[in-house]
Amino acid sequence: MTKTKIIAFSGSLRAASFNTQVIKAAQQLAPEGCEIELIDYSALPLYNQDQADQCTPLLVLDIAEKVRAADAILWATPEYNYSLPGALKNLIDWLSRQAPQPLAGKPAAIISASMGLLGGARVQYHLRQILVCLDVHVLNKPEIMIGLAHEKFDAQGQLLDEKTQTLIATQMQALCAFSKQLD
Amino acid sequence: MTKTKIIAFSGSLRAASFNTQVIKAAQQLAPEGCEIELIDYSALPLYNQDQADQCTPLLVLDIAEKVRAADAILWATPEYNYSLPGALKNLIDWLSRQAPQPLAGKPAAIISASMGLLGGARVQYHLRQILVCLDVHVLNKPEIMIGLAHEKFDAQGQLLDEKTQTLIATQMQALCAFSKQLD
Amino acid sequence: MTKTKIIAFSGSLRAASFNTQVIKAAQQLAPEGCEIELIDYSALPLYNQDQADQCTPLLVLDIAEKVRAADAILWATPEYNYSLPGALKNLIDWLSRQAPQPLAGKPAAIISASMGLLGGARVQYHLRQILVCLDVHVLNKPEIMIGLAHEKFDAQGQLLDEKTQTLIATQMQALCAFSKQLD
Amino acid sequence: MTKTKIIAFSGSLRAASFNTQVIKAAQQLAPEGCEIELIDYSALPLYNQDQADQCTPLLVLDIAEKVRAADAILWATPEYNYSLPGALKNLIDWLSRQAPQPLAGKPAAIISASMGLLGGARVQYHLRQILVCLDVHVLNKPEIMIGLAHEKFDAQGQLLDEKTQTLIATQMQALCAFSKQLD
Repeated sequence: MTKTKIIAFSGSLRAASFNTQVIKAAQQLAPEGCEIELIDYSALPLYNQDQADQCTPLLVLDIAEKVRAADAILWATPEYNYSLPGALKNLIDWLSRQAPQPLAGKPAAIISASMGLLGGARVQYHLRQILVCLDVHVLNKPEIMIGLAHEKFDAQGQLLDEKTQTLIATQMQALCAFSKQLD
Repeated sequence: MTKTKIIAFSGSLRAASFNTQVIKAAQQLAPEGCEIELIDYSALPLYNQDQADQCTPLLVLDIAEKVRAADAILWATPEYNYSLPGALKNLIDWLSRQAPQPLAGKPAAIISASMGLLGGARVQYHLRQILVCLDVHVLNKPEIMIGLAHEKFDAQGQLLDEKTQTLIATQMQALCAFSKQLD
Repeated sequence: MTKTKIIAFSGSLRAASFNTQVIKAAQQLAPEGCEIELIDYSALPLYNQDQADQCTPLLVLDIAEKVRAADAILWATPEYNYSLPGALKNLIDWLSRQAPQPLAGKPAAIISASMGLLGGARVQYHLRQILVCLDVHVLNKPEIMIGLAHEKFDAQGQLLDEKTQTLIATQMQALCAFSKQLD
Repeated sequence: MTKTKIIAFSGSLRAASFNTQVIKAAQQLAPEGCEIELIDYSALPLYNQDQADQCTPLLVLDIAEKVRAADAILWATPEYNYSLPGALKNLIDWLSRQAPQPLAGKPAAIISASMGLLGGARVQYHLRQILVCLDVHVLNKPEIMIGLAHEKFDAQGQLLDEKTQTLIATQMQALCAFSKQLD
């Protein structure tokens, strides 16, 4: 049975991020043969084309290479001001200028977790529009918006909510299947 | 006659940015008594709540204070991957966490310039959604999307296109009037 | 003291619509001097430019005239398939072709009620984008998304939820004040 | 070689609609074995849940059945007030309430044509968000926005612009291939 290699990005840079915890939960809940690697991009500079024209940060080249080698992408992100965190968009901006464009044609899934009631209902559609530009095939279902996140994780950041666990397991299975379908 | 003080942000960090040039054109084209200050935020770190909880960069405090003292805001931005440049969103994320929230209640105008045909038709509506969150009153008309930007500026970055100049002059007048109406 | 005349549209055509009930609640909760008229547009045909070129339905002319005479607009709408009900958008399409365009320059407020958890978090931003086109000034705050609507109204359709009542009263006051500010 | 059966909807109801002409052009430009059927839904009533609970129009049942039997969907639509024509959204609202939901899992492509410069840059992303709800897999590339449509069709409504013809041919090939991939 072939492996499915998933690269995961958390939209939040804080150490105890709910969305980073979501990715760790997904690592546990993913089907056998599906491996999820969480990428740290917190050291990226703000994208500036003048700099990009002279020298692309090694971290960008490294992440781009990992994305190219991956079968699928997992985005787990909070909603900042009704849209993506600037840091996550900055990562996307850097990746989008690499050739060959690393995200092109990749299947992907989106999860959002936030402390508000809506759980990121707005950020997901902004991210989807961005990913059309980059030719990423985003899974339609299940959509996972984890509202009131602080009630669904314990003090150590472990995801406790069973309904959410089931959703994540279902989505990871769907992502692996989608990845094989598009292969 | 009272002055109108406008704070302007360019969504692009490159030195010869069309959008920075748009702001410089707006400085020339604005009505008498309207002063536009371009803010440099290129030295901001990526927003990270862990860092924010310990220490807010002085640059953030400084920009927040300037925004609070302003009568209106001008955003001039390219479209990166169908949305805001990460760097610009990162600035907004930093500002949004300052108390009192500096953008609340401010009138604003949006311009987008890009080398493509559409001139940023997609970024403007993402920015508008973000600004609802921050309680910014964005001018409806005129909407200014400068497509094929490389044909409308000379080699020194001077905006030459007369139709665009007229639109910018009209928008700056409308912004000053809107600012007085909301005062 | 001057009166404020508000024209209200419900996005749902069913008799027991939660959103129509929201408008009836707003009629009770609005400040003194603020009068809200609910408009029935259920008899409109689908917009077809061929027909419009020959003969505009009297109902369109009548609604357009009422909108022109109004100080402000209230939209209360469910979310159908992550966006506006087609019937409500059809009304807007008809109105947008009347000259002078009746909605231009009007202040407005948006409420959405639905049985799901999100309460219409997606439809509101689609409606806001549409209203930019029509030069409507939409109030930023408070945003009112009434999720789990079936738990907040009684069997007779009366809005019982006190927190929602307070939000609606606050929004109607803000709309009246905004209307005077923009006058 | 298996056939690909595509059901097409035009967002405009007028007889000489550019978008209806786009579908007719697509019928000519589609690869061999790909058949495109244009559906007339102009006789639909406005969706009203009260009516739907009693009796679904036969036209809805008929279109739903055709969609279920199709391999893929083609949407060609103008932009009305920065979003979908109400009539097109009304069709989608009717379809979405049929069980089994006819659009679920279908691959689709979007084209927009309009007389303005942007060619529908805004309607496409509203339609994409709606189609996430309905679990439709929308092709990412090529995106086709036909601006200045009146310059690209002759007086008989024939699409003359070669660049646009090539884009449509490419998109129809991509849609057929995508349909087989998702099968």
